[in-house]
Amino acid sequence: MSTEYSVEQIEQILRRYLPPEEGLQKTILEAMNYSVLAGGKRIRPRLMGEAFRLFDGEGDVVEPFMAAMEMIHTYSLVHDDLPAMDNDTLRRGKPTTWSKYGEDMGILAGDCLLTYAFETAAKAFTRTEDAGRVGQALGILAEKAGIYGMAGGQVVDVEKTGQPVSAEELDFIYRLKTGALLEASLMIGAVLAGADAGQVKTMEKIGTDVGLAFQIRDDILDVISSEAELGKPIGSDERNAKTTYVTLYGLEAAQREVARCSAEAVELLGQLPGDTSFFKAFIEKLEQRRN
Amino acid sequence: MSTEYSVEQIEQILRRYLPPEEGLQKTILEAMNYSVLAGGKRIRPRLMGEAFRLFDGEGDVVEPFMAAMEMIHTYSLVHDDLPAMDNDTLRRGKPTTWSKYGEDMGILAGDCLLTYAFETAAKAFTRTEDAGRVGQALGILAEKAGIYGMAGGQVVDVEKTGQPVSAEELDFIYRLKTGALLEASLMIGAVLAGADAGQVKTMEKIGTDVGLAFQIRDDILDVISSEAELGKPIGSDERNAKTTYVTLYGLEAAQREVARCSAEAVELLGQLPGDTSFFKAFIEKLEQRRN
Repeated sequence: MSTEYSVEQIEQILRRYLPPEEGLQKTILEAMNYSVLAGGKRIRPRLMGEAFRLFDGEGDVVEPFMAAMEMIHTYSLVHDDLPAMDNDTLRRGKPTTWSKYGEDMGILAGDCLLTYAFETAAKAFTRTEDAGRVGQALGILAEKAGIYGMAGGQVVDVEKTGQPVSAEELDFIYRLKTGALLEASLMIGAVLAGADAGQVKTMEKIGTDVGLAFQIRDDILDVISSEAELGKPIGSDERNAKTTYVTLYGLEAAQREVARCSAEAVELLGQLPGDTSFFKAFIEKLEQRRN
Repeated sequence: MSTEYSVEQIEQILRRYLPPEEGLQKTILEAMNYSVLAGGKRIRPRLMGEAFRLFDGEGDVVEPFMAAMEMIHTYSLVHDDLPAMDNDTLRRGKPTTWSKYGEDMGILAGDCLLTYAFETAAKAFTRTEDAGRVGQALGILAEKAGIYGMAGGQVVDVEKTGQPVSAEELDFIYRLKTGALLEASLMIGAVLAGADAGQVKTMEKIGTDVGLAFQIRDDILDVISSEAELGKPIGSDERNAKTTYVTLYGLEAAQREVARCSAEAVELLGQLPGDTSFFKAFIEKLEQRRN
């Protein structure tokens, strides 16, 4: 059985919702599409689509939200790369948006992607009689992207650059910056399919665990992987004196924490209806990933 | 009779929807609130609130949208002021957000305001049974703020800086950069109050006229006003070799165009039900404004 979304299928959905590159504002439309189509594992829309299927969601109401989620993830990368932030000129081997289109267009491309994400999600209102579910999903999308979600984590991460980071702060950054959009992806898929409040809460918890496991695994790979495997230089956290789960607790404790979060997420799957084998395999793959 | 919104009443509503300045992400919450509360005429939420009343809107469903609209307007100013854009250190006599909080926090404060605008507007879903209207209003908000609205105009304006601007391009910039949020304000007030599609369309047209009149009046004031009246140096368009309606068509044609747009907007009011005297006075005041 393979009804699971492939990366290609998700990119087809993305392309359907990206704006045509025409009109006087053509440059920014090109910059937006360039940023979104520059590659990536498409983890968030994939989790959202699978969550929608798990709860027997019908129709395509989830698709504008899958596209919106990837636009928000992309805007965050575009702005992270800016000279005033991480000042990165390459991402996945390609020029970052600002280094290709200029710093002003880099800022504007991020702004436009963020706004277009909500414009895209709002298209779901014209495609369903269930405006209540769509409204709830939109609220989750905004909350988990904003000051009490991803952006809030990013703010603290940026503020703490070059400064000591406490255990509490590190936990806050990981949960918000990495975890929030994963939580939102699972929750929105469930909400749009009509899951009940308890089930949505369980999806959120699984998202929290997956986010922590994902981020701590990143910290581990920066130590134990190789440049060939990871596709980027290893040891960068140590060089940049960056506080990570590994620098704070050590490699072994980090590995134990990834295992604990993954096991908890798998256990939470037991509370859900239907065939959760996609999610179980996804979590186990994440735990062992080498890049 | 004076049931019209005052600036103070609108700022009370804004304060109610702005986030409390607490938690690890406190800095950004301060920066967001600083930006929004730095003053301004609050034209957009005022027009929205009055439009809601014109169509006999009941309850306070419009209030989160009034706050959201001002957050979006503010985010656009915060990002316009950035070093990579206009590089302005002062706005209304106060340090701009980035010059007070740093360039990284300036970018993030804009991002967070934009996201929080949608989070705030989405709160209207929990306060009304009519999720359909709220969904429609949210779609208008996103569309008019985005690439086919304000941000689209801003992109072309930025791209054309220091270059010749055609009549078509100038019209595009004015309609989108200045007009789109005014259109949205009038439309959203009407939609939330239950106005029909034809009435919403009329409100949009009035917004277009008001936006053009407002922007061209700005161009005129840069020539005929004084620094004392305007609160900022005059003649800046000429010094910066900026194409405006005045430089393209001359002062007299600009004054005629403001009068034409204003008259058309007043005429359109005749198609609307109820007491439109607030809007008539507003348009006439805009036409004659000295600052």
